[in-house]
Amino acid sequence: MTEMQAALEKIERALRAYLEIPAEGQEAVLEAMRYSVQNGGKRVRPVLTLAFCRAAGGQEEAAVPFACAVEMIHTYSLIHDDLPCMDNDDWRRGKPSCHKRFGEDTALLAGDGLLTLAFRTLTDAPIAPEEICRAVALLSDCAGVRGMIGGQVLDLASESGVPDRALLEKIDRLKTGALIEAACVLGCIAAGVRDAAVLEAARSYAHSVGLAFQIVDDILDVTSTREELGKPVGSDDKNEKITFVRLLGLDGCKTLVLDLTERAQAALSAFPGDTSFLRDFAAELAARRK
Amino acid sequence: MTEMQAALEKIERALRAYLEIPAEGQEAVLEAMRYSVQNGGKRVRPVLTLAFCRAAGGQEEAAVPFACAVEMIHTYSLIHDDLPCMDNDDWRRGKPSCHKRFGEDTALLAGDGLLTLAFRTLTDAPIAPEEICRAVALLSDCAGVRGMIGGQVLDLASESGVPDRALLEKIDRLKTGALIEAACVLGCIAAGVRDAAVLEAARSYAHSVGLAFQIVDDILDVTSTREELGKPVGSDDKNEKITFVRLLGLDGCKTLVLDLTERAQAALSAFPGDTSFLRDFAAELAARRK
Repeated sequence: MTEMQAALEKIERALRAYLEIPAEGQEAVLEAMRYSVQNGGKRVRPVLTLAFCRAAGGQEEAAVPFACAVEMIHTYSLIHDDLPCMDNDDWRRGKPSCHKRFGEDTALLAGDGLLTLAFRTLTDAPIAPEEICRAVALLSDCAGVRGMIGGQVLDLASESGVPDRALLEKIDRLKTGALIEAACVLGCIAAGVRDAAVLEAARSYAHSVGLAFQIVDDILDVTSTREELGKPVGSDDKNEKITFVRLLGLDGCKTLVLDLTERAQAALSAFPGDTSFLRDFAAELAARRK
Repeated sequence: MTEMQAALEKIERALRAYLEIPAEGQEAVLEAMRYSVQNGGKRVRPVLTLAFCRAAGGQEEAAVPFACAVEMIHTYSLIHDDLPCMDNDDWRRGKPSCHKRFGEDTALLAGDGLLTLAFRTLTDAPIAPEEICRAVALLSDCAGVRGMIGGQVLDLASESGVPDRALLEKIDRLKTGALIEAACVLGCIAAGVRDAAVLEAARSYAHSVGLAFQIVDDILDVTSTREELGKPVGSDDKNEKITFVRLLGLDGCKTLVLDLTERAQAALSAFPGDTSFLRDFAAELAARRK
């Protein structure tokens, strides 16, 4: 079994366990939470949490609750993003989106439930309470109004605007990058890292990989098919969304992705442990086809 | 200045400070968060947090971040509850509800933002990290699928059902009671309480006061006017909602409220500090006219 498969297996098992909540009439919302968490995501964020814990010299097991918490936040954000009052997406990874399957009210509550459960899950980490408090503050900052939610607000506000690279990078840095930053830094916290230079290197990797990830999304929306991607393509163009492809063209985007991937890999030199997995992971995310 | 006024002033000042978040394009969502937090609520929950901290022999200041966190959770739940896919309420405390004022997308994100900020705010308490971790777990449990959200799910599912007192009490215990429980127990945690009997007494007070609070709401929906209440009256009847008034009649409800208030006051004997404020508070909540 590869390192990747082993990490994925740990994450899936732990996520299932955290969602095995005994219900007394709340079956519908729990089913909706499980449906969305187990909807075939790539688990990019939790994999990063475990990998950064290892790279920082920690025990992977200590980072599993943090990894699951980040994935819960990611999943809630997708559920709420898909709602009719937001992006109004009927499909997510080739399956009906949460509200199409369970109704808008249940989807709203399932998102709220996952967001709430994420913070509970952080407290389950087998590390010092002081480090868990750091994790709670970090995840809240990265997921909140100054982080991921802030990016969604900017994204909503920009929909009718003129493309501008600085704004677009800012939206992506917050909307996608902030939670990837949380994933990477939480791995370091689980390993007990307090060295500011190492934490900064994790952030740098996260920002480069996060931006590259978003640019690849924009590229695939133009170059892929619905079958490959599991969701409608060309939606950015249809929604007149500003994207990196519109700003830089396809070739410009591909060059930028390569550059960002190299920058991410360079940041890894600050880590004492084996970083080959994180090097390869950045390259694979850049080369992904879906 | 009375004890109540002093507590309210501390809470208002702290809530304002926590919501003074520097924005870079997220002004709309921050304005929506502030609008809803400062929308004239009675601050029942944060007042309870401070009062339980005092009754348990702690310093009130230590409980202020916990008090604010509970109020943020309460406010987010009202914002999401009012959304068209939930109760579809245009009014809240005599003012347009958050989505009527700011749009559905911004209201959704404002709710998410407050829920996320609540956990950050807990970590601000000037107490041992171990106690903060207890607070995070407790607030998540009480606000989550096994608590407040679970009550909302049961409430949605029961809308078309036949009234049944056991179900109604369960819905109220979760939907309203769980967060009041969090408020009371968080006050104890801020005071460093670990004695199970004292924590259980706080829960007992919370459940009695919480249920009484809900029954008074049902009574006022029948006996009050729109001007007194700041929201449409008779909405329960219009929505064919099962309520305590329909089950027990007005007189039966009034008797039950008195009984619950006495039970809440009896639970206070477990506390070492001055509990006169909490005794009076329970009585005032039972006698409230809006």
